[in-house]
Amino acid sequence: MKRVHLLGSTGSIGRTSERVLAELGATHRVVGLAAGRDSAGLLAQCERWRPETVAVADSAAGEKTARSLEGRGIRVLVGEDAAERMVLEVDADVVLNGIGGARGLAASFAAVRRGGVLALANKESMVMAGPLLRREADRTGARILPVDSEHSAIFQCLRGESPEGVRNLILTASGGPFRTATLAELERATPEEALRHPTWSMGAKITIDSATLMNKALEVVEARWLFAIPPDQIKVLVHPQSIIHSMVEFRDGSILAQLGLPDMAVPIRHALCHPERGETRDSYFDLTRFRALTFEEPDAARFPALELGFRAARLGGTAGAVLNAANEVAVDAFLRHELPFQRIAPTVAAALDRMELVPDPTLAQVLAADRAARTEATACCC
Amino acid sequence: MKRVHLLGSTGSIGRTSERVLAELGATHRVVGLAAGRDSAGLLAQCERWRPETVAVADSAAGEKTARSLEGRGIRVLVGEDAAERMVLEVDADVVLNGIGGARGLAASFAAVRRGGVLALANKESMVMAGPLLRREADRTGARILPVDSEHSAIFQCLRGESPEGVRNLILTASGGPFRTATLAELERATPEEALRHPTWSMGAKITIDSATLMNKALEVVEARWLFAIPPDQIKVLVHPQSIIHSMVEFRDGSILAQLGLPDMAVPIRHALCHPERGETRDSYFDLTRFRALTFEEPDAARFPALELGFRAARLGGTAGAVLNAANEVAVDAFLRHELPFQRIAPTVAAALDRMELVPDPTLAQVLAADRAARTEATACCC
Repeated sequence: MKRVHLLGSTGSIGRTSERVLAELGATHRVVGLAAGRDSAGLLAQCERWRPETVAVADSAAGEKTARSLEGRGIRVLVGEDAAERMVLEVDADVVLNGIGGARGLAASFAAVRRGGVLALANKESMVMAGPLLRREADRTGARILPVDSEHSAIFQCLRGESPEGVRNLILTASGGPFRTATLAELERATPEEALRHPTWSMGAKITIDSATLMNKALEVVEARWLFAIPPDQIKVLVHPQSIIHSMVEFRDGSILAQLGLPDMAVPIRHALCHPERGETRDSYFDLTRFRALTFEEPDAARFPALELGFRAARLGGTAGAVLNAANEVAVDAFLRHELPFQRIAPTVAAALDRMELVPDPTLAQVLAADRAARTEATACCC
Repeated sequence: MKRVHLLGSTGSIGRTSERVLAELGATHRVVGLAAGRDSAGLLAQCERWRPETVAVADSAAGEKTARSLEGRGIRVLVGEDAAERMVLEVDADVVLNGIGGARGLAASFAAVRRGGVLALANKESMVMAGPLLRREADRTGARILPVDSEHSAIFQCLRGESPEGVRNLILTASGGPFRTATLAELERATPEEALRHPTWSMGAKITIDSATLMNKALEVVEARWLFAIPPDQIKVLVHPQSIIHSMVEFRDGSILAQLGLPDMAVPIRHALCHPERGETRDSYFDLTRFRALTFEEPDAARFPALELGFRAARLGGTAGAVLNAANEVAVDAFLRHELPFQRIAPTVAAALDRMELVPDPTLAQVLAADRAARTEATACCC
């Protein structure tokens, strides 16, 4: 039986993970839950999973949770670093990190320090601190398994293959809600329009990233570190149906692709069960239901954010942290109608231009770069 | 350096293999060539590859070859069993069997008896004698690597996976030249029409098999033995563009697919280089060049041959040999305008109905079943 920490348990990844874990049954046991502020959601999860420990980031929510769990034999950790402490103090085989945004990094680093498996849905961890996490994982023997559809696809295609055989990783992109929009339409794009994603149902931040293609830019950086591959061996292909989740092109002319329904349960299940393949009853799918699978090159002119991912991947060091932080600030400003859609990428580019990068950063330097980039980008936005 | 026997060297697979081997260069050395009757072609290949031994099935062509090679230090074996003898007598790491039809079986069996790698383009070997070849390979430690696009695709998708994780193998089919034909049109179909294949350029027999979907029926039997998988875990999906060469559906809801140009060089290269991936300069391909990839269920009513493959796979024993032999006779009769297109499958079905099957046959029993099925089918055709 695998002992599992579920971080970000009351969020979207956490909820889907519960569905997966319920289906997997006795092979996994949830020993730790970490949430932000949703005390009611967390208490309901405690009923379902009876964990040993829970971690709550928000102090008011944490105190409420602690009171409600009194006498239940569940330890409650409270504070911004509660998830990280839980990971360090409570043994687990798999830490599934579904915390959203930069706040997820510390817990990822803790999981890698402990060894074992980090099932990583928090892509910011890899984007911000890829080299650091890789180095630490090499030291401790930890394995980092991707929990997003694209990198899980690539991970599956690379199984049993040696790195020398790989020519290119091909990340597929839905193209987002503005795939066919003109430049003029993009100039006028509102948050409401940008939030209408064609194939995936996700949070607001990620949906905007999908509209700018910044999500692929972040995934380029993530892939660069996760698979230790040079940026020029990463390609992006627009595939509006989101059925092929990504591909690997080998030097012998073969391409392997992973496909299936756009359902986060698939990469979650894969990471939780690896190296086995867990069983499911609900995710099979029928290719004949799709009229056609199509592919097109991404348009760099309309979607300048994409190139920023390659730039950050080439720059290395703290560039990923700057990319991510500046983008979070810019997207936030866009959602508040304070920044036009087409200014998101230039704001991020300006931060990358102006910030001094640290080549081989420590965790503290990564977090400092994150903070500084937010200040820089905020200045740009206003 | 891998020592390679190239069987069927002057045929289509042999010629494509030469192109692949030329590109691979010093990693492989051709030590044996086996041809049927094309003495001139074989002599030209001897110039290019300077093999240690050649085998010629046709005695007149063999004598001519022997005279031409006198004093060249190349041993010449002549006769129907020349390829088989060469495989048994001359050491090689890989035997690539590109002999067409039932005549290729004896050499496959010899290669498996010797151990090492059998790169198998002769699908009749597996269809006729799958259980026998599997048993012998288990005994000697030989590896059988598929050299056709579908099974090579599945083989690649299964790499690093355990059999327990597999839900279904999904063989893709182009659907052939009659994919959209009505039943009435199929009744009137001529050999000339059937020979116009939409995506693959192949020999006449295989092209007719593609028009009836008997090629998939044969591939179902092949997959059943090659991957030791129950027939009800094999599915067939029509995919007219022939870009996805086949897929594996796993129990966790993931599907892996192998894709690329319809080019036999890819599976040949894969089998010759396995477990490495050889390098190529010419086979990369661009998915954006394709308007769309589409998928549809095969139509059992218009293509009754397909079900015969599942039937033969379930029956086991000599059923595959009967299926293959009866089909060769029926296709031959169709090409001579002596049997209507829509009578091919019923002729094969009748042979399967009438023949007594041997459950766990020896090679001699397989060959006897092959001969008897030919007699039976010939009687049906006339």
